[in-house]
Amino acid sequence: VPVNWPKTDGSYFVAGIIIKGEDMPGILKDISNSITTFENTNIKSVNFSTADSMFKGTITVYVRDLNHLNKLIERLKKNKGVYSVERFDADNQ
Amino acid sequence: VPVNWPKTDGSYFVAGIIIKGEDMPGILKDISNSITTFENTNIKSVNFSTADSMFKGTITVYVRDLNHLNKLIERLKKNKGVYSVERFDADNQ
Repeated sequence: VPVNWPKTDGSYFVAGIIIKGEDMPGILKDISNSITTFENTNIKSVNFSTADSMFKGTITVYVRDLNHLNKLIERLKKNKGVYSVERFDADNQ
Repeated sequence: VPVNWPKTDGSYFVAGIIIKGEDMPGILKDISNSITTFENTNIKSVNFSTADSMFKGTITVYVRDLNHLNKLIERLKKNKGVYSVERFDADNQ
């Protein structure tokens, strides 16, 4: 975890999330909507793939601090069809 | 273009679309919603990235035939903030 949370100049951190679950119609819409509407979190990138009726999304988002990221992860866990939501360190991509 | 459009056994083709435009909050939600609600088109994969307030999405979808794909492309061109929508041959990925 970067030591200097949170940045004081109002800038954001890029954080990574890996989300997995059941491939249902509209699942990507639901996930991206949940992110955008959660404290106006901005999406940097999404890599979303489906196989055998499952999906995996690797998403990078802009967050103000660790609290923002953790609350976003908790929010995403509530989405229908979502099985797991984990952080990954976007820096060493 | 694969010769045997459309498949008679009701199966689908994987088709590729590259979509570019202005990075606005909710743009990924709008695009994925437009796809899913257009004749229940199913999304196979999305690679979405943003830079300098622009976005680029490489999307593969399941389509019944060329007509389904072309109408979907026309539909996506109407989305706010979308500048271009083009096919790409998903087979030689």
